[in-house]
Amino acid sequence: MIKTAIIGFGNVGKCAYEAIQNAPDMTLSCIVKRQSAADIPPHLNDIRVTDIKDIRANGDVDAAVICLPSRMCPDTAESLMNMGIFTVDSYDIHKSILSEKLRLDTVAQKNNVSGVIAAGWDPGTDSVLRALMEAMTPRGITYTNFGPGMSMGHSVAAKAAEGVENALSMTMPAGAGVHRRIVYIQLKPGADFAAAAAAIKNDPYFINDDTNVIQVEDIDTLIDVGSGSHIIRKGVSGSTHNQIMEFSMKINNPALTAQVLVSAARAAVKQPPGCYTLIEIPVIDMLPGDRNDLISRLV
Amino acid sequence: MIKTAIIGFGNVGKCAYEAIQNAPDMTLSCIVKRQSAADIPPHLNDIRVTDIKDIRANGDVDAAVICLPSRMCPDTAESLMNMGIFTVDSYDIHKSILSEKLRLDTVAQKNNVSGVIAAGWDPGTDSVLRALMEAMTPRGITYTNFGPGMSMGHSVAAKAAEGVENALSMTMPAGAGVHRRIVYIQLKPGADFAAAAAAIKNDPYFINDDTNVIQVEDIDTLIDVGSGSHIIRKGVSGSTHNQIMEFSMKINNPALTAQVLVSAARAAVKQPPGCYTLIEIPVIDMLPGDRNDLISRLV
Repeated sequence: MIKTAIIGFGNVGKCAYEAIQNAPDMTLSCIVKRQSAADIPPHLNDIRVTDIKDIRANGDVDAAVICLPSRMCPDTAESLMNMGIFTVDSYDIHKSILSEKLRLDTVAQKNNVSGVIAAGWDPGTDSVLRALMEAMTPRGITYTNFGPGMSMGHSVAAKAAEGVENALSMTMPAGAGVHRRIVYIQLKPGADFAAAAAAIKNDPYFINDDTNVIQVEDIDTLIDVGSGSHIIRKGVSGSTHNQIMEFSMKINNPALTAQVLVSAARAAVKQPPGCYTLIEIPVIDMLPGDRNDLISRLV
Repeated sequence: MIKTAIIGFGNVGKCAYEAIQNAPDMTLSCIVKRQSAADIPPHLNDIRVTDIKDIRANGDVDAAVICLPSRMCPDTAESLMNMGIFTVDSYDIHKSILSEKLRLDTVAQKNNVSGVIAAGWDPGTDSVLRALMEAMTPRGITYTNFGPGMSMGHSVAAKAAEGVENALSMTMPAGAGVHRRIVYIQLKPGADFAAAAAAIKNDPYFINDDTNVIQVEDIDTLIDVGSGSHIIRKGVSGSTHNQIMEFSMKINNPALTAQVLVSAARAAVKQPPGCYTLIEIPVIDMLPGDRNDLISRLV
């Protein structure tokens, strides 16, 4: 059994709890809750809630499922690796994934553990699909379209802007991998809408996209965590053009993110020391059960 | 550069030639042609054609791309591994994949080489998709639908029946992973249709499917090598039901099979000694180019 800890108990952390409860090869040792997070629900009263530094106070932890906002993930992973704990996170700031991976790779090897970075659905399982499609058609163009649906990373980024009480960022596919962002914000008393909107539009999460910011009274009435992706590739196998392939899904976003994290935690403990993205890990390592049985059933 | 040999020069072998020509990190050392195969086309006159035993007569070979009918693949892979050559094949007899993999795993380790078995699109890349979908939704049902289109493996099996001069097996999706087979056969002079049809229906390739056999005058006028697959899964992430995902493609079948084989050959030379299916190999290993560049671009 893999002894796990959940770090962060927001939308994704709560779903990670459910994924671990449903995993035949995992137990939950403890939850690390941020001070700002809501209280742990009463039905989880038997789960130990602690700080990172005391994560092993009541028994061992093999792997930590980091369910924090992206910007907190790499340093948290580093702290946990330095304690000898395997880590997974869904860090999603695309332009920094490689540099953070390389930094954590050194930390992981020094501590003889492994970590998986960017293990959500995009980056994450969508990355595996893009890589697989290129193996099938080395030349061609891949378009990744998201939504329509709420982006958790973008919503958290918008909520962090000065004067913003709460925010919802919707991703609207405009075709051929281009997206518009519609950001609904609920202001703090006395905050300036124009300043908040400008801060959001200049955030690295939004600066490359056509972004509309709209003020609303109450974000909570708008929230639906469904989303999706649609990956299309038309390419060339050898000298044969017009090979057409596509993947699409309609999913509950935090539930899928958490499930991929938990499946990746299973893979993390099987890898040689280092920090990996999902495209560097055999997919079979994410699945529970006997390896030969999986090969018989899935290949 | 990876020095390759193509074993078998039928539909898939010819496409493997094109995939290797288009690979930036591979050269072709030679082609091993079966006696029954058509002559090598004149524009390939500069390629050495040889027997397996003389495969290294004019220079080294790192990896062999086996493009033979399934039933010939495992023994051919064994012979090549015993010569210290890495192998890939698209062996597609599902019920024997595990046992042949385990047998070849021992051979590969003894010879300090690696092989990839069942590396076409199904089994192959479709297997990776099925495994990935289970990592995203551990509970649920996956349906794999094929066609409509020609099945190369089934056509070869039908052609092997007593009295059959040439055959084309079409795979017709009947929904929810159920298929019908329509087998067109061209008889040898004086052959008995009823006996040939019965032999085909009792072949392991056909015995589990609703199979119709139809006699025609000339198979060649019917041949189109386009096909496809459509994989659908509805499942549960953690405790969240109704997570819906699907993959579909419309492709030239031998071109895709050959491209996956060639991409898998690239992966084979990077694996520790052993014999692998595609779900056991990191997808990134199938792609050419700098590893960090691939992570930056695809994750």
